[in-house]
Amino acid sequence: MNYRAVGKNLGIVLLCQAGFMLPSWLLALFDGDGTAGAFLTTIILLLLAGLPLFSIKPVQKNLFARDGVAIVALGWLAMSLFGSLPFVLSGVIPAWPDAFFEAVSGFTTTGATILPAVEGLPRGILFWRSFTHWIGGMGVLVLALALMPTAGAMHILRAESPGPAPDKLVPKMAQTAKILYGIYLILTLVQVALLLLAGMSLFDAFIHAFGTAGTGGFSNKNASIGAYGSLPIELITGIFMLVFGISFTVHYQLVRKNWRFALADEELRLYLGIVAAAVLLISLDVWRHQLFSLPEALRHAFFQVSSIITTTGYATKDFNSWPVLSKGIIVILMFIGASAGSTGGGLKVIRVLLVFKLIRRELQRSKHPRLVKSILVNQRPVDQPVLEAAMTFILFYLLIFAGATLLVAPQTDDLVTASTAVLSCLSNIGPGLAGVGPAASFAFFNPFAKLVLSFCMLVGRLEIMPVILLGMPSFWRRVGI
Amino acid sequence: MNYRAVGKNLGIVLLCQAGFMLPSWLLALFDGDGTAGAFLTTIILLLLAGLPLFSIKPVQKNLFARDGVAIVALGWLAMSLFGSLPFVLSGVIPAWPDAFFEAVSGFTTTGATILPAVEGLPRGILFWRSFTHWIGGMGVLVLALALMPTAGAMHILRAESPGPAPDKLVPKMAQTAKILYGIYLILTLVQVALLLLAGMSLFDAFIHAFGTAGTGGFSNKNASIGAYGSLPIELITGIFMLVFGISFTVHYQLVRKNWRFALADEELRLYLGIVAAAVLLISLDVWRHQLFSLPEALRHAFFQVSSIITTTGYATKDFNSWPVLSKGIIVILMFIGASAGSTGGGLKVIRVLLVFKLIRRELQRSKHPRLVKSILVNQRPVDQPVLEAAMTFILFYLLIFAGATLLVAPQTDDLVTASTAVLSCLSNIGPGLAGVGPAASFAFFNPFAKLVLSFCMLVGRLEIMPVILLGMPSFWRRVGI
Repeated sequence: MNYRAVGKNLGIVLLCQAGFMLPSWLLALFDGDGTAGAFLTTIILLLLAGLPLFSIKPVQKNLFARDGVAIVALGWLAMSLFGSLPFVLSGVIPAWPDAFFEAVSGFTTTGATILPAVEGLPRGILFWRSFTHWIGGMGVLVLALALMPTAGAMHILRAESPGPAPDKLVPKMAQTAKILYGIYLILTLVQVALLLLAGMSLFDAFIHAFGTAGTGGFSNKNASIGAYGSLPIELITGIFMLVFGISFTVHYQLVRKNWRFALADEELRLYLGIVAAAVLLISLDVWRHQLFSLPEALRHAFFQVSSIITTTGYATKDFNSWPVLSKGIIVILMFIGASAGSTGGGLKVIRVLLVFKLIRRELQRSKHPRLVKSILVNQRPVDQPVLEAAMTFILFYLLIFAGATLLVAPQTDDLVTASTAVLSCLSNIGPGLAGVGPAASFAFFNPFAKLVLSFCMLVGRLEIMPVILLGMPSFWRRVGI
Repeated sequence: MNYRAVGKNLGIVLLCQAGFMLPSWLLALFDGDGTAGAFLTTIILLLLAGLPLFSIKPVQKNLFARDGVAIVALGWLAMSLFGSLPFVLSGVIPAWPDAFFEAVSGFTTTGATILPAVEGLPRGILFWRSFTHWIGGMGVLVLALALMPTAGAMHILRAESPGPAPDKLVPKMAQTAKILYGIYLILTLVQVALLLLAGMSLFDAFIHAFGTAGTGGFSNKNASIGAYGSLPIELITGIFMLVFGISFTVHYQLVRKNWRFALADEELRLYLGIVAAAVLLISLDVWRHQLFSLPEALRHAFFQVSSIITTTGYATKDFNSWPVLSKGIIVILMFIGASAGSTGGGLKVIRVLLVFKLIRRELQRSKHPRLVKSILVNQRPVDQPVLEAAMTFILFYLLIFAGATLLVAPQTDDLVTASTAVLSCLSNIGPGLAGVGPAASFAFFNPFAKLVLSFCMLVGRLEIMPVILLGMPSFWRRVGI
């Protein structure tokens, strides 16, 4: 392990976070609501911890895979720990496990909350809470790479970016990181502008654009997007959620006007196909049960499907009261999640696509046992290790889902609450069903369950391996597998 | 496709079934309960259909993989269709979809029933219903191979036997089939003898030994094994369920006194480890909730864990009323299932073992991306295609589980009923949770849902591929993949 390089990169993360906290601090000062001190204290602590680490000069500049994994895992843990301080120090969330849960939920873009009501809370705190979504969506280390090119940056990007194999948009990693953040920033600002046009206040527009861009889901309204009761706002948010659930590689190709390449992307097609099928089925189901008229059914089904498959978690209606078929589809969407290389969570559409392709090959093999055939995605063969990693990822995900469900089960009244609470955290969504539905909060869990769920959020955002390796003694040994 | 050989083998299956129906017919004649005619008619129909098929002389004797798949899939469908006739013709189950469900549930050793009460039904019918478990447990085609050696028998055994790769116990397939049925028969008779000693009537002993040996779960008591309220009967059944959930390769090694080889089997160790852990956790959970004293908790937890992991489905208590953690563990056991090469269903312990090993390798690869390392089971490397098939099987299983849950969801009041009904059928267990718990029946589903669930039972018993291929037009084309 290159401890010096790991330390230096952690320093960069902490200093970035100090910078990220400035807008919230200024807002708190402006409002004079007494929470500015909490931000200032945290910023000072971040500088005190970050500057010495940043001043480390690595002897060996090169990074290996395990160094990248360590930087990302420790970086995210540090971010969550420091990020929870403003909540505690301001007294808005007095209990530390709750504040940690909220911070992890923010950075991992989950959007699950332990706050039963958010209206009336200090604006600086609400801004910080939602801004963590924006930081976590694209990843703070991707930003660090954009600002400060590092040798071995690929290993960091690989550990922080979701998906089987991150695409290099351009040969240089620093340039790739800059393009990613550029697209991210512009799309966010476009959404802010559109929300303003649709009648939202500037503050609300930023809050909800952060929540949408990071596919997070924190709102400053108790009833989430439903509070506005506005079709334009729902359409803008619904469409932008879908946009942020698309791989940024596709966005980059669109920016470069490579229409054919972008629109032929197999993951994009499956993603849009799943959305269309789910909207149609849920619309018919809720309409058949006479919950809504057909146009209203389409409106709410579209918003909810977009919100869930992108793992954002905004709600306009309490889908927990929808019929069983609709709830079943929603749970399946919770597992699938968004596209790889987007800001969304879940298993990722590309892995589901690989599963379909593997099944097709296995069916052919049942007839022709000696068949040798590569799996192709976008006309290019998928390497065996990438394929194995994708399948193992899905199975590991399900195993962690099952294990964590057992751990939180004693805190709940039924299996649906326990399992969808875990699934919602693991896929970085926010709401689940039953006791953790859109109308409920995660406040009732005890501190142990909250830590388990926080662990699930980190596991989901960082795609398991960094978080698990962090806890394995063998990972920290100098030699050995 | 070698249509002639497929036809001939189907003939053998039908003739075997005619033979299997004789004891039930004789019992019905002896009781004079008016159901003998139903059996006789079915036997005559089986002979009329079976004899012409049997008389086909294949031009080409050799069988290929797809022929084996076709024989098994069509054989099981034919068995289920003819097996349902006595239920309909006797008037015990007048509606055909119900009778088909019950027959498929019998042959696939599921044990899910549409009969709200079984006590007082004609004994011949009850005998036939339970005997289908015994036939389906080891497989009628395995028996056919034992009686009549065929070229290419390996492909048939492969398609009918559960597990990633069936073991040849001895070089000749016919000899292997004979050994398997020999062990199966002797173990069944030992259990009958022990149940008699424990005070069961001869008829009841046979019914429950059939249900145990096939890991089926049909009983002639409404309250299942719980009706006897007898510790010895519960212990005998509980232990024998576990025994029949062990791979018959291990049993064969034990018969040959290869103790070391048998007891070192990694699948066996994981299987027993899971059982021990589940019994312990459930005992503590139900005891902590003051449902039972500690010894009673151990007694019921042992029986239920044994019944569920082996996918038998007998009940002594209504575990649907147990706490959430216990129910969560039961659902996980429902997925895992028994050992490969046993009479039980589910994903099979060996595949779960492979998942653990793949995850361990993937964790190592996150640190050392270029690591090349084989997966070993019992010190022998697992071939890449076997590994891929096992992983794809698990994912396909989960996909069918999700899809079928959506199909039956509109018939249910909640997701737990819909999903555990499907899971219970797919893993060939019998009872699920909530609306299909041990105290309930599957009678309330409409005919469409019953067909979907019957499909799931066949998919689970035949490990997916044969059933899916049967419905694909490309499977029946002479050329092409």
